[in-house]
Amino acid sequence: MLSRIGFGRLACAKDSQPYIVPINFSILANDIVAFSTEGRKIDWMRGNPLVCLEVDEIETPQRWKSVIVLGRYHEVTEAAADEAEKVLIHETLQKRAVWWEPGYAKTVLQGEVRPLNPVYFRISIDTITGHSAGD
Amino acid sequence: MLSRIGFGRLACAKDSQPYIVPINFSILANDIVAFSTEGRKIDWMRGNPLVCLEVDEIETPQRWKSVIVLGRYHEVTEAAADEAEKVLIHETLQKRAVWWEPGYAKTVLQGEVRPLNPVYFRISIDTITGHSAGD
Repeated sequence: MLSRIGFGRLACAKDSQPYIVPINFSILANDIVAFSTEGRKIDWMRGNPLVCLEVDEIETPQRWKSVIVLGRYHEVTEAAADEAEKVLIHETLQKRAVWWEPGYAKTVLQGEVRPLNPVYFRISIDTITGHSAGD
Repeated sequence: MLSRIGFGRLACAKDSQPYIVPINFSILANDIVAFSTEGRKIDWMRGNPLVCLEVDEIETPQRWKSVIVLGRYHEVTEAAADEAEKVLIHETLQKRAVWWEPGYAKTVLQGEVRPLNPVYFRISIDTITGHSAGD
């Protein structure tokens, strides 16, 4: 379900204050992978890697599913990522529009859409829980 | 927009670990009001009142709005709430189905739907920020 939907809400926290943003993501080798432009979300996750991702699929009030992931932020730097990983992350993320990132620059070059100063990151999954009704 | 949509994602945090749940809510005198059954969310907000509510409205990738509220949890106890407040909260919340609460019991009595052991709460708004595209 996570892989199919690829869109959810990510929460991070600083000094006990949580913060939520909508996010596009993909799944790669059991991690959640995404990118963002620099900003509050990235600053906070650098300071405290504990995050929560919530994904839901609501067809009707009687028929819905939700998944809640608790995990940890890991920044993927150019230096740390091997070439194969970078290519895979890039290809995976190209499948998702990132229309939604504040400060996102739609630079279309040879069919590619790139964010402005992207920060790539993975979220390793510590726990995953699901709720559903109507199946 | 908050009042019209009445549905979003609420994040709370414990020991730097954020947690997100979907939530139905209403607006009452500039506070967000909602109820829930007992559980992790209520436990965590009792321990740390700082919360974040995110509400969005996505028509297309080019046309969307989101609102992010940072606020504080206040439990509304029978003792603390005056009668007018209780009536107003109750009426306000009756307008929203709470199909979504885990452990929710659909007890329909004279046209009313009541949660099982409800915990009523308000969220006072500290800051509110919005993003949009396509308007």
